[in-house]
Amino acid sequence: MTPDREESSGGPAVTALGGGHGLSASLGALRLLTERLTAVVTVADDGGSSGRLRQELGVVPPGDLRMALAALCDDSEWGRTWSGLLQHRFASDGELDGHAMGNLLIAALWQRLGNTVEGLDWVGRLLGARGRVLPMSSVPLVVEADVSDGDVCSTVVGQSRVAVTDALVEQLRLVPSDPPACPEAVRAVLDADWVVMGPGSWYSSVLVHLLVPELAAALHRTTARRCVTLNLSAERGETHGLSASQHLEALSKHAPGLRVDAVLADPSQVDDRGDLERTAADLGARLVIRQVGRGDGTSRHDPLRLAAAYHDVFEGVAG
Amino acid sequence: MTPDREESSGGPAVTALGGGHGLSASLGALRLLTERLTAVVTVADDGGSSGRLRQELGVVPPGDLRMALAALCDDSEWGRTWSGLLQHRFASDGELDGHAMGNLLIAALWQRLGNTVEGLDWVGRLLGARGRVLPMSSVPLVVEADVSDGDVCSTVVGQSRVAVTDALVEQLRLVPSDPPACPEAVRAVLDADWVVMGPGSWYSSVLVHLLVPELAAALHRTTARRCVTLNLSAERGETHGLSASQHLEALSKHAPGLRVDAVLADPSQVDDRGDLERTAADLGARLVIRQVGRGDGTSRHDPLRLAAAYHDVFEGVAG
Repeated sequence: MTPDREESSGGPAVTALGGGHGLSASLGALRLLTERLTAVVTVADDGGSSGRLRQELGVVPPGDLRMALAALCDDSEWGRTWSGLLQHRFASDGELDGHAMGNLLIAALWQRLGNTVEGLDWVGRLLGARGRVLPMSSVPLVVEADVSDGDVCSTVVGQSRVAVTDALVEQLRLVPSDPPACPEAVRAVLDADWVVMGPGSWYSSVLVHLLVPELAAALHRTTARRCVTLNLSAERGETHGLSASQHLEALSKHAPGLRVDAVLADPSQVDDRGDLERTAADLGARLVIRQVGRGDGTSRHDPLRLAAAYHDVFEGVAG
Repeated sequence: MTPDREESSGGPAVTALGGGHGLSASLGALRLLTERLTAVVTVADDGGSSGRLRQELGVVPPGDLRMALAALCDDSEWGRTWSGLLQHRFASDGELDGHAMGNLLIAALWQRLGNTVEGLDWVGRLLGARGRVLPMSSVPLVVEADVSDGDVCSTVVGQSRVAVTDALVEQLRLVPSDPPACPEAVRAVLDADWVVMGPGSWYSSVLVHLLVPELAAALHRTTARRCVTLNLSAERGETHGLSASQHLEALSKHAPGLRVDAVLADPSQVDDRGDLERTAADLGARLVIRQVGRGDGTSRHDPLRLAAAYHDVFEGVAG
């Protein structure tokens, strides 16, 4: 991959793994760098509007997919209108209360077309999306976590519960344990120049991808370079109290032997630079520290700063 | 209006009034004749998905508007996909059962944009619609009918109940009785070359337009010629047992003094041609008899035959 080739083909081929707000942040930045962008999205949500649709209609939970599509929408009146519509949430005293419009639209497309990927591609066309959004699996998944709280061990079932557990997550599992990966997602990982994991809810949105066997195998096998982007703040819930290094150790635990090329972190999250550099080096990665937050005290990424940081990562600029 | 002007401007300006399947049939034919097509649609539905949305979200019932938009959609893969999605109906054991996807989409657009006409125009753009769809009023309406069944007189409240009453409809009313017309709909009636009323559920979808005062005034005042298209079969329910002539008399009763230029009827519905010609003449209209049904025993119009018939009507070809 030479810069010339990237230039002529619309940038490097980047595949971003994740879910929720973290993935949206990543996509909002990456879309500024490349036209060859694919999101591979978790389908284990069981809460809120997605959880209700999954239960009522038996479809893959659409919420994380919808958010990823909205993050890629064309920045025009057309794109903004339809993206805003997809993100619209009904508020009432009745049966529609809390449903995101886009979840209903995606579910209806799936029912009509009988094809998950085709349905998402149609929403992408509607939004003029810059890039493609794929599910990590073509079937709805359940996340389970073995957790410990002092001496007490227990199992937490369901992404919505795992995401908010204050106990320490020891081991994450998927049910079914060997779900079919989405073939297009596997292909996107294999064909990428860069694969980006994180930011996002570490267990329930990021590491969960490593538990889909074919996807994990593709992540090991791909010639793409791999970037892990750490969160801006330790979230309440599943990663409460975990340091940046411990985030990387959790990744390593759930994907033994996976090599990483770069770890991207905001300086606000680096308490012990030497420690984090060593943990990154254990994965084969160099540590790239860049300010990527908004600087407004929130835990939200600034899309331009994050884009600049990814650019440095992709170009191999020193950490 | 010369043929040349029509040719250069995409056909005559036609405004079609109605609702439900009848209006869809009319639009499916008229779209073959002109690019300057406007549908003015009833907003009194209180049953099914529309009735539920009206009650839960306080919006204008979207169902008839959705059907009209679908009838105007572009005949391309894009248009057919989105039109099919809008017409998709959820079937489940849960809260979404029976909701038409397009009704939810239109309601969400209205909530976001705060403007009924703007929301419909956006759906029209999505479908690549050939023409424009407008509500007859910007507020949800209730239809009431005084009916008689032998010696027993009573009042039936709600479009869904009026549509299926087997009693004789004596008088139709709207609640509120003086609803605001949609200004764009009034303008479309005034600016038309032809206004088409019917086919459709005679009281609840066709005559109901005459009860919106500003719309009725525009229908009287417009320089457009007026065509009344009769139904293919006496429906069960509200017009059970009514002859073609009695359909025209009901129109006359609810719009005293309204002049009509043409009455279009299928031969299968003309028992007494002389009687129907006289009733049409009382309205100022010539009777145009053309085969417009599918010839398959259903009460559905054939779009090509109906288009050919409208062409004859617009060109003044003898009945």
